[in-house]
Amino acid sequence: MSDSLSQILKEIKPLDRKAMEAARVRQDELTKPGGSLGRLEELSVQIAGIKGKIISGFDRKAIITMAADHGVVTEGVSLYPQEVTRQMVFNFLNGGAGINVLARFIGARVVVVDMGVAGDLPAHPNLISKKIALGTKNMAKQAAMPPDEALRAIEAGIEIVEGEVAKGLDIVGTGDMGIGNTTASSAICAAITGESVEKVTGRGVGLPNEQLAHKAQIIQKVLELNKPNPRDPIDVLARVGGFEIGGLAGVMLGAAAHRVPVVIDGFISGAAALIATELSPGLKDYLIAAHLSAESGHKVLLQYLGLTPLLNLGMRLGEGTGAALGMAIVEVAVRTLAEMATFSEAGVTKEKH
Amino acid sequence: MSDSLSQILKEIKPLDRKAMEAARVRQDELTKPGGSLGRLEELSVQIAGIKGKIISGFDRKAIITMAADHGVVTEGVSLYPQEVTRQMVFNFLNGGAGINVLARFIGARVVVVDMGVAGDLPAHPNLISKKIALGTKNMAKQAAMPPDEALRAIEAGIEIVEGEVAKGLDIVGTGDMGIGNTTASSAICAAITGESVEKVTGRGVGLPNEQLAHKAQIIQKVLELNKPNPRDPIDVLARVGGFEIGGLAGVMLGAAAHRVPVVIDGFISGAAALIATELSPGLKDYLIAAHLSAESGHKVLLQYLGLTPLLNLGMRLGEGTGAALGMAIVEVAVRTLAEMATFSEAGVTKEKH
Repeated sequence: MSDSLSQILKEIKPLDRKAMEAARVRQDELTKPGGSLGRLEELSVQIAGIKGKIISGFDRKAIITMAADHGVVTEGVSLYPQEVTRQMVFNFLNGGAGINVLARFIGARVVVVDMGVAGDLPAHPNLISKKIALGTKNMAKQAAMPPDEALRAIEAGIEIVEGEVAKGLDIVGTGDMGIGNTTASSAICAAITGESVEKVTGRGVGLPNEQLAHKAQIIQKVLELNKPNPRDPIDVLARVGGFEIGGLAGVMLGAAAHRVPVVIDGFISGAAALIATELSPGLKDYLIAAHLSAESGHKVLLQYLGLTPLLNLGMRLGEGTGAALGMAIVEVAVRTLAEMATFSEAGVTKEKH
Repeated sequence: MSDSLSQILKEIKPLDRKAMEAARVRQDELTKPGGSLGRLEELSVQIAGIKGKIISGFDRKAIITMAADHGVVTEGVSLYPQEVTRQMVFNFLNGGAGINVLARFIGARVVVVDMGVAGDLPAHPNLISKKIALGTKNMAKQAAMPPDEALRAIEAGIEIVEGEVAKGLDIVGTGDMGIGNTTASSAICAAITGESVEKVTGRGVGLPNEQLAHKAQIIQKVLELNKPNPRDPIDVLARVGGFEIGGLAGVMLGAAAHRVPVVIDGFISGAAALIATELSPGLKDYLIAAHLSAESGHKVLLQYLGLTPLLNLGMRLGEGTGAALGMAIVEVAVRTLAEMATFSEAGVTKEKH
């Protein structure tokens, strides 16, 4: 492990228990039956613990959407050709993708990062290049990447989020784009959680039954060939992961080190969270699972992480679209805590005891 | 039934199938795997059907929060004293309640209506008075209200929403305030759905076990005494309902007649939807269930209505807070349909077939 990664892991501290208690006390004084805002109350307490105080909202929001390609697509695991990864990066930059619409709606900036797209991307003011390679190797034949590239991917993610923190960042959401990345995510999920390949393999963008069975066979082969060590998350990332997955793991670790809450998107962000929380179990307290993806392995993964998703809308687009919606819910949670009147301020009688 | 109510019922038309088909076709051309926005895609199609076209968003949003008191509170069915209804109306007017925070966040106006609060409320520029009486009668001893008051409550709701339509209204959410109104809503739910009182009776703001049993006994007594006719929704409202519930039923009917989508809040709004959809089965197509309330009867009620809630955050505050969150989801649905680039616009390759 590199010095910079070791340093970040040391900087991830426990939540501030006093701030959480202050948030709980205030929740009970607000003009509503105790507990009646449900998950919103829990979120407000978690955010207070992350920030070390009760805050009024999130003025500076970003979705970090990382793109990369996957050599395993030559095995026929996806309905879309590999060129779509690169095409979608242009779509992000031109503001036409789902994540752009969602981010505009919630007032977040979209940070688009090339972590390893298979093809050149021209310089663009809104594109950050951290390209590790032109896609991973075909992990059905060899490791997806050498260990040093896995480490560099994570470190790139840390750098990206630290750059955003320097610009001002109150909350961050994670997103992904990469044809073939549900295959890598399923492999990571099986390796780390120990669940069967069948249980963690889904249809991605909509594979029919026979191709789903083929995808599961490929993932089984990938795991048997590479034998990722479940106790070594860098090894798992290197053997069966992807560059955007490593980058997103770095984003999560870097954000937590700077006490920035992280709203994780769906299955691919979840796989990144598996890698990241194996590196730092304390990271979990900084994570909020935005939604339950329609991708079947996502439920397994969230249960392993001990995270309960906020939303269940049958979404499976990625890009950070679920995270953006989740950030809106988290912001409402914070604002109700900050802005609602207390019983004494409003002259409202508390319940009888 | 009055002439004005009959007229409104006639004005509720089926959804526009052509506009729905146009929305479906456009969804399949947007730069995402088909169906990958899940419920958001379905919502965008429903809204196109309501509006008769694909729209760009909701500029003019309102939450209509109706308040009234319930004579049955003298039976000890609530943890809060009756005066809290009136106190919370002041809180709404002063901007300190949960619904005010949520409405500010989504850019909606809050329309506060006194449908029958037990006590005088001073004139206030943001308060609309449609007071039918100083609370309902104790329905454990007699009918909650005479039939003409039930009809007036519904008509008042229609007038309120028509006033808002005149000001400009693209989408409406419903909300309630009324100490004791989960008791009335459970009675309505049992009467109309035919489910057992136990199954539809919940803790309201947090009743402990013994008081929950007492509440269920009271509701049983209310039903046995009043014998509401499940085939006559006005009779159900009159015998075991409430003024705000009748008002909200009117809001739903009036909104649908003007092709305004209605986002319904939790259990009390759901009880109003039961009354309203019994009057006009076609209304269902205009309704969107915002969330699954923690109140136990809500699930029964939504299943009966055939509505699937968008959110499940353990909320049980009422006021329209769930509806406000739901409106944000609906707006995201509409905006993704309107704003996302198509495959041809963005130069992105569609999936292989």
